Amino acid sequence: MVNVAGRSPRGSSRAHETREAIVDAAERLFAEHGVGDVSNRQIGQAAGQANNFAVGYHFGAKADLVRAIVRRYTTETEGRRLRMLDEMTDSGDLRAWVSCLVRPATGHLDALGVPSWRARCLAQFNTVPALRQIIVDESVATPSMRRTLDGMFRLLPGLPPEVHAGRGDMSRLLVVHTLAERERALHEGGPTPRTTWEATALGLIDALAGLWLAPVTTSTVTTRTDPPACVD
Amino acid sequence: MVNVAGRSPRGSSRAHETREAIVDAAERLFAEHGVGDVSNRQIGQAAGQANNFAVGYHFGAKADLVRAIVRRYTTETEGRRLRMLDEMTDSGDLRAWVSCLVRPATGHLDALGVPSWRARCLAQFNTVPALRQIIVDESVATPSMRRTLDGMFRLLPGLPPEVHAGRGDMSRLLVVHTLAERERALHEGGPTPRTTWEATALGLIDALAGLWLAPVTTSTVTTRTDPPACVD
Repeated sequence: MVNVAGRSPRGSSRAHETREAIVDAAERLFAEHGVGDVSNRQIGQAAGQANNFAVGYHFGAKADLVRAIVRRYTTETEGRRLRMLDEMTDSGDLRAWVSCLVRPATGHLDALGVPSWRARCLAQFNTVPALRQIIVDESVATPSMRRTLDGMFRLLPGLPPEVHAGRGDMSRLLVVHTLAERERALHEGGPTPRTTWEATALGLIDALAGLWLAPVTTSTVTTRTDPPACVD
Repeated sequence: MVNVAGRSPRGSSRAHETREAIVDAAERLFAEHGVGDVSNRQIGQAAGQANNFAVGYHFGAKADLVRAIVRRYTTETEGRRLRMLDEMTDSGDLRAWVSCLVRPATGHLDALGVPSWRARCLAQFNTVPALRQIIVDESVATPSMRRTLDGMFRLLPGLPPEVHAGRGDMSRLLVVHTLAERERALHEGGPTPRTTWEATALGLIDALAGLWLAPVTTSTVTTRTDPPACVD
């Protein structure tokens, strides 16, 4: 893993190498079998640990292992995003801010090469409420993300709170699952709508700009009813 | 389950009731534990079947069970969509076509009540390439979906093929995972950005219209490279 942000020192102790090997194995097994379907014992064996308790010794709870995987991602994307923000020329261009959301991720996954498992892990963690909070804490609440979202939302004044929240959730789901599906397709040799990660980034940036700039249709419906056309 | 489209006859034989109980159990267990993490034996036990081979006897492969779950969804949504199409007044309005994509699903999930597991099952099936094809065959290749997509795409001429394919995938991921996340939040008592399924539909329709109408930025990048701001 290229060390962009200068964290997690290289060429370090045996313990560090063991931890890295465990995170490598966990990332692959979580992506392939599901985070809820992989035991510490399986991770330890895949990491070449003779001691069945190695994973528990180095990481304790599974949440700590999830956090370590998320931090690998954040270490990479945070450095990329901070550089993009420092080089931004037009802070009045919504696509420039959206690009700072998307390109650090696509550039990182591009650099990881094929196969990678990180995007599929993040997509899974997103579907588990308890683990999603780790992603929010580790990768959404970072300085570069705050700067990006602040800059983006300054250009989107007056959105009703529930629309703002709904579009935020839709944006997260769109990016996370688009990247995970492409990663899986590249790994399994399946078809990919875009030929490169850069083209994937462009497609996501256009889509997200369209999503956030879309006119808001306000509902007058306050009770749980079907739209007229669906009433039996 | 309300029988909108008139399929899967009611008040039927013991075998039919057993099959329904097995599909009920499979839907819940797949949503809660993952389709790859649930055995026929577990499904049979949850369905109150003393015979460990009941699931295999009634459904054979797991794919047949997945198909049965998808058909429950399609039976409902197909009827709702056909009625919406028949009552459509302005075929030149993109939001009207997008509404025919979204509202049959939100209306059906609304009618299912809380808790439901169907949206989470469909989201999971979508992430497994082998199972995703079942969804395409059973729910995307239906008469109402063909009419809807044809009508929608007539209003979106001249999109480059890779943009068309990319936005199609993004639309599918956006709808499927937004509905699954809301279903999970309603089940677990978590926060939901929109107060009703109808408001959720409106938010999705606005977002999808914005996504499809967004200006296309064409990429000149043909090799796997990072955008300039990300080059180390």
